[in-house]
Amino acid sequence: MVGKFYGIGVGPGDPELITVKAVNILKNIDVVVCPEGKKDTESIAFNIAKDYLSDDMQTLKLHFPMTYNENTLNEKWKENAQIIADVLRSGKNIAFLTLGDPSVYSTYMYLLPFLRERDIDIETIPGITSFCASASRVNIPLASGDETLCILPLRRGLDGLDEILDNFDNIVIMKPSHDNKKLADKINERKLNDNFVMISKCSNNEEEISHSVGRLRDQQVPYLSTVIIKKGGIR
Amino acid sequence: MVGKFYGIGVGPGDPELITVKAVNILKNIDVVVCPEGKKDTESIAFNIAKDYLSDDMQTLKLHFPMTYNENTLNEKWKENAQIIADVLRSGKNIAFLTLGDPSVYSTYMYLLPFLRERDIDIETIPGITSFCASASRVNIPLASGDETLCILPLRRGLDGLDEILDNFDNIVIMKPSHDNKKLADKINERKLNDNFVMISKCSNNEEEISHSVGRLRDQQVPYLSTVIIKKGGIR
Repeated sequence: MVGKFYGIGVGPGDPELITVKAVNILKNIDVVVCPEGKKDTESIAFNIAKDYLSDDMQTLKLHFPMTYNENTLNEKWKENAQIIADVLRSGKNIAFLTLGDPSVYSTYMYLLPFLRERDIDIETIPGITSFCASASRVNIPLASGDETLCILPLRRGLDGLDEILDNFDNIVIMKPSHDNKKLADKINERKLNDNFVMISKCSNNEEEISHSVGRLRDQQVPYLSTVIIKKGGIR
Repeated sequence: MVGKFYGIGVGPGDPELITVKAVNILKNIDVVVCPEGKKDTESIAFNIAKDYLSDDMQTLKLHFPMTYNENTLNEKWKENAQIIADVLRSGKNIAFLTLGDPSVYSTYMYLLPFLRERDIDIETIPGITSFCASASRVNIPLASGDETLCILPLRRGLDGLDEILDNFDNIVIMKPSHDNKKLADKINERKLNDNFVMISKCSNNEEEISHSVGRLRDQQVPYLSTVIIKKGGIR
């Protein structure tokens, strides 16, 4: 029998913030994809999941190049999809682990079109996003009633952020370390100092919660941070 | 010892789409709040959680009026917070269950300011949102790379939707049944027919997935539906 391919969201960091469904599937996974050449979010995902995996689980190292060249990427995705298809044909189930949720800015989703071309049986298991975990951690709503919520990764130069700050009630900024100094200045400029919180490494041992613009301006803002801005107030 | 108050996200419908953390807490819950006079999302939440609760768990019926009058609401929240505080003081742990995630459009968050005034020990446990579960169900990303994501409840008259459709890559529309005919017309008008999916009752027995504008226009769109629009294409 041909195996099945699972994309599994393992949540933000605390191994308990994974779903019962993910745990039940992980028990029966034969092979876990370990992407190489990427930021280490996938190895963090592996550490979250490892106690749920069976002892005889194997890893499949796949090279995912750090490039924006689309042709190079497509070639590599195709090659990796073929390797995955071959392992599935040998009857093994494969998991691709994703920090947070697979539908929110994950590498996993780039791979899917190449797997679909090969008629692979795919199931995606949702996970707790960093922004939901962060809001829960400080007991605040991301959005209430008729309010809108905007989620965006921080772009260098804060492209488009002013318009979003004008028009939205609640804004989640992912990857603030991309340009945290400019973001801190913008929060100052727009007098939002009492309207934001930054949560880094949410729900793991090194978690940090800060309401300080000075901290946000700091060089050492971790990659795994989330900024929540609530124009109606945060505390 | 005084008890603790938990807000627990139970996910979108499938009892397996709850976190391990929520399951571990539910085992030790003495009292579950059962809001009355509200839409039945809370009773759906109770059904999702019930197999994880202990046999001697009790329910606490609280009346939450269906009104937009702020004074009436505040009075009622205050009264309910006092009832909760009294039960906690008797040493019992209380859970307030939320369908999906507690930080995303939940009644639970309205209650929190009134609990905080009473120095109550509060912990919020995040849950799988309907939009993450829906995207996983059809194996599509909500957002990738540098893309933006906007989440909003459908307002009558589609207030502000055109501007959002102009400016965002991905749009999640919650509660489309509020004005589903107009939303269907808008999707037609903007030629987004191949760029959306509606998922109703995601992950439960009556789940329905539709790419049809005709279906969206229908009178029978369930309250628990999510529309995902991806301007870059959905399939």
